[in-house]
Amino acid sequence: MAENPINPTCPADPLLATLLVSCTDKRGIVAGLAQTLSGHGANILDSDQHTDRLESQFFQRIRFDVSDINTDRLTLERAIREVAQRFEMSYRLEFNDRKKRVALFVSKYDHCLHDLLLRHRAGELDCEVALIVSNHGDLRAVAEQYQVPFAEFQMTPGTRQQQEQAELRLLREQRIDLVVLARYMQILSDAFIGEWPHRIINIHHSFLPAFVGGKPYHQAKERGVKLIGATAHYATAALDEGPIIEQDVVRCSHKDSIEDLVRKGRDLEKVVLARAVRWHIEDRVLTYRNKTVVFD
Amino acid sequence: MAENPINPTCPADPLLATLLVSCTDKRGIVAGLAQTLSGHGANILDSDQHTDRLESQFFQRIRFDVSDINTDRLTLERAIREVAQRFEMSYRLEFNDRKKRVALFVSKYDHCLHDLLLRHRAGELDCEVALIVSNHGDLRAVAEQYQVPFAEFQMTPGTRQQQEQAELRLLREQRIDLVVLARYMQILSDAFIGEWPHRIINIHHSFLPAFVGGKPYHQAKERGVKLIGATAHYATAALDEGPIIEQDVVRCSHKDSIEDLVRKGRDLEKVVLARAVRWHIEDRVLTYRNKTVVFD
Amino acid sequence: MAENPINPTCPADPLLATLLVSCTDKRGIVAGLAQTLSGHGANILDSDQHTDRLESQFFQRIRFDVSDINTDRLTLERAIREVAQRFEMSYRLEFNDRKKRVALFVSKYDHCLHDLLLRHRAGELDCEVALIVSNHGDLRAVAEQYQVPFAEFQMTPGTRQQQEQAELRLLREQRIDLVVLARYMQILSDAFIGEWPHRIINIHHSFLPAFVGGKPYHQAKERGVKLIGATAHYATAALDEGPIIEQDVVRCSHKDSIEDLVRKGRDLEKVVLARAVRWHIEDRVLTYRNKTVVFD
Amino acid sequence: MAENPINPTCPADPLLATLLVSCTDKRGIVAGLAQTLSGHGANILDSDQHTDRLESQFFQRIRFDVSDINTDRLTLERAIREVAQRFEMSYRLEFNDRKKRVALFVSKYDHCLHDLLLRHRAGELDCEVALIVSNHGDLRAVAEQYQVPFAEFQMTPGTRQQQEQAELRLLREQRIDLVVLARYMQILSDAFIGEWPHRIINIHHSFLPAFVGGKPYHQAKERGVKLIGATAHYATAALDEGPIIEQDVVRCSHKDSIEDLVRKGRDLEKVVLARAVRWHIEDRVLTYRNKTVVFD
Repeated sequence: MAENPINPTCPADPLLATLLVSCTDKRGIVAGLAQTLSGHGANILDSDQHTDRLESQFFQRIRFDVSDINTDRLTLERAIREVAQRFEMSYRLEFNDRKKRVALFVSKYDHCLHDLLLRHRAGELDCEVALIVSNHGDLRAVAEQYQVPFAEFQMTPGTRQQQEQAELRLLREQRIDLVVLARYMQILSDAFIGEWPHRIINIHHSFLPAFVGGKPYHQAKERGVKLIGATAHYATAALDEGPIIEQDVVRCSHKDSIEDLVRKGRDLEKVVLARAVRWHIEDRVLTYRNKTVVFD
Repeated sequence: MAENPINPTCPADPLLATLLVSCTDKRGIVAGLAQTLSGHGANILDSDQHTDRLESQFFQRIRFDVSDINTDRLTLERAIREVAQRFEMSYRLEFNDRKKRVALFVSKYDHCLHDLLLRHRAGELDCEVALIVSNHGDLRAVAEQYQVPFAEFQMTPGTRQQQEQAELRLLREQRIDLVVLARYMQILSDAFIGEWPHRIINIHHSFLPAFVGGKPYHQAKERGVKLIGATAHYATAALDEGPIIEQDVVRCSHKDSIEDLVRKGRDLEKVVLARAVRWHIEDRVLTYRNKTVVFD
Repeated sequence: MAENPINPTCPADPLLATLLVSCTDKRGIVAGLAQTLSGHGANILDSDQHTDRLESQFFQRIRFDVSDINTDRLTLERAIREVAQRFEMSYRLEFNDRKKRVALFVSKYDHCLHDLLLRHRAGELDCEVALIVSNHGDLRAVAEQYQVPFAEFQMTPGTRQQQEQAELRLLREQRIDLVVLARYMQILSDAFIGEWPHRIINIHHSFLPAFVGGKPYHQAKERGVKLIGATAHYATAALDEGPIIEQDVVRCSHKDSIEDLVRKGRDLEKVVLARAVRWHIEDRVLTYRNKTVVFD
Repeated sequence: MAENPINPTCPADPLLATLLVSCTDKRGIVAGLAQTLSGHGANILDSDQHTDRLESQFFQRIRFDVSDINTDRLTLERAIREVAQRFEMSYRLEFNDRKKRVALFVSKYDHCLHDLLLRHRAGELDCEVALIVSNHGDLRAVAEQYQVPFAEFQMTPGTRQQQEQAELRLLREQRIDLVVLARYMQILSDAFIGEWPHRIINIHHSFLPAFVGGKPYHQAKERGVKLIGATAHYATAALDEGPIIEQDVVRCSHKDSIEDLVRKGRDLEKVVLARAVRWHIEDRVLTYRNKTVVFD
């Protein structure tokens, strides 16, 4: 194990990799992958697997320690690619020495923004918060307070297309891996979303598919539901219809005014979005047929 | 207090009344009612009150002991009627010496039926289960086991209207107060429902308004939600759109097959329906504008 | 209704009062209070009432609008006092034109502190955050960021008594109404607690009475529980044994390390403490026999 | 795949095996097991794995289809035994062509008994309910209704040892695999429990470790908790201290009398016990150091 440069008596964090695979179910996949990793000296720490029998789809997440492999990283990657091709797998391989770079999109509500930034600072979210993007200037001071660069792109019907292009350029320049819509109140164009498949997480303030669209707390009050919810999902071209990553609810009653629902909802939005972001960052989410497999 | 005929040293159960009122909010309602009851020697045990500021509607549930009133029951009832008229209230007055008579409507699923009958036997539901009605003969044996009369009304498109008329006659003959659709898989006609406003409770196996209509567990699986729900509501002409009395959810995941969702859902359906039925029986539910006020 | 000085076309916030009473159960209490308030022209907005039959104790919370009373505030207060004496009630009367002044006690953990300050700023907590008190300097920067005065009282076994005296003097000078121990890691003396009966709220990071004392997450891990909890309670001389105001739990499993429990627990601690503080500030909590009645 | 004797066009249920292993964590375990199963033509359907880093313990559950193995069952079993020895594993291998035989122990409360029997009948519990054992005759009629043999063993201080011996003989004769204490109100001797390590499931009506011992709902009322719970655990010599399999809670308040807590608790007891029994029957539970790993 490598030496820890700061404290040589304490070992450095090991180099870990996470492999996410999905494919049509076949015999021998679990054994094939385990054998390949084991054969290169990688030590499997966690392995989570799921087979959707109805759709005959196989999913697996393997986390393994590569600090003591008997070949090198490139050779191991090549071997994994070879197995993936043999079983016609889609796969993603991530190493813990490269943190994901995240951009937070916000408008005027600040509760999810504060929540994510405080969690990041507390070590709950193992990523870099590279950027805060907004269509308003209101939350610039929050960005400064946490020392995160803030980019404002005001939108008008006339400038929207151009502004989105500028946003996309910035995201590319900044090598952003994940966009989090932390109560971003501007609808993104299909073109924008199309460039970021399954890499934009949105928080919707209802228990989807109930109350799609605007003002879900007003809709909930009007319908007289006894629980309100929040839903974190990947953004797709179809509004509020992308793959759901996480949902939760809280009890309400006839006593709750719209303001009470909004207040209770804020707590839900924060925890539901934070869980979804953390799972994505830790490579725990796979998508298929507009659904997710979450290995939590 | 009256003597208990079985054990004269122990007092009999007191005679209790429950008054449910709703009206446009005005000054002096709470005081007016309290004074009237107090003036007749009734002792207020519980009083729950709610004002919907947005709609300017007032709701109250008062439970009071009338075993020691200094007038008589009729005089008290007349006094309450007078206050109700003064404040233009809708009201309902119920006494605990008259139990509600309940008819359970079922088809082939038996879990809610067993659950309600066992709860009734355990003393959780202070009512008479007068009747089990079904469009199939399958659950006749269950009815016999609990010694409840069973009435079968098979439905075909041609006979439905006539059969519903026969059902209505039976419900009237039996002086039924509440119809519980305990997973009754036959849609009731508007005419039938129209005769029983806010006295038919249905259990829908989803978190309404998500997944209205048929096969909600299949819809939930297809959409990939992370929680499934159940909703007890008063039946209205608009299917699955009546006032919601109670809802609850349980967590699910990609691992759950349709069968797992159905299994988890059964537990939800049972508790959600049972709570709604108990609240109705205990006169805890008021309705307005297609919503409920539940004083639990 | 009084004119709003800032915008004369819009009415000013009405002057509201909250009356909390408790006493041995008797006939006529509800009517007596309602009549008195009504007689002075106060308009009852909400009334919540509870009778503990076992202990024969009566509790009530009444919120009423006094902007249009036909006497004056002093006369109304005198009338309430008179009723209270007649029924031998304990009571508390609060007006919404005087906000409670709150002191937050913290040590090094900052999650509850940020949470309360952000909620306060968002308008969820209708009080003044007058002071942050700590036995360490670590969170001074947070206090400055939210522009709240910060007072540091370092404690050593030798100086503790003297430092607590200084704290008490400061609390008195600052006319503090409520002390919130927002993960304050220093045990308060019985003398200190004795001066603030039912006005110190503590958050304990377990589902009390399970896992009293130190390191409850370690205890939970060791015992192998499937849910972890948090408890907000009034501090009493007996550690972790004061009246419970609010509790909640979250699911955990064999997969959760101590660090995971701590992370999940932080979310619980925040919401449970915030609910308890809000209920106290809104005069929704009554205590008796080491228990609480919460009119939420 | 074998032919289905009843409907030859539809394939028979496949022969499935479940392997549960635990051992000190080592390199190559996952690969070693996967390779062995795969080498014999077994098809891995599900694989769930957990490593407790603190205790350096490895746990795995593998479910695999053995209907098409290229050797025979005995050879496969021998191969698994060989791997287990190599890695010094504890293991258990179960086949779905042998259902577990379950004995339900009851006293006078019938809610858990009805619940388990109805779930069994609904196909939720894939076992044989071989026997109902009681220290009272009260629930004999329930046993008859579900056509399950009923054995009564009345206990007095003088006869207890002898009666327990008779019970043990009966359990052995009946080849019972699992004893479920479905609100059995008689304490079992250490000797009895010692013969059935991790094969006796008890339901305790509190959120353990809170409120051990008798009358937990009374204790909960006395302490003024805001949630009540239920805990299913393996019985051990230390009362209420065995490994916890499942727990859940439900909200309560000052309004709940002891009777309300008992009623709410019944629902909890039923679902918590049923989940624990199902997980045990489906070989999803591993125990170590007085804790469980549940692969749900």
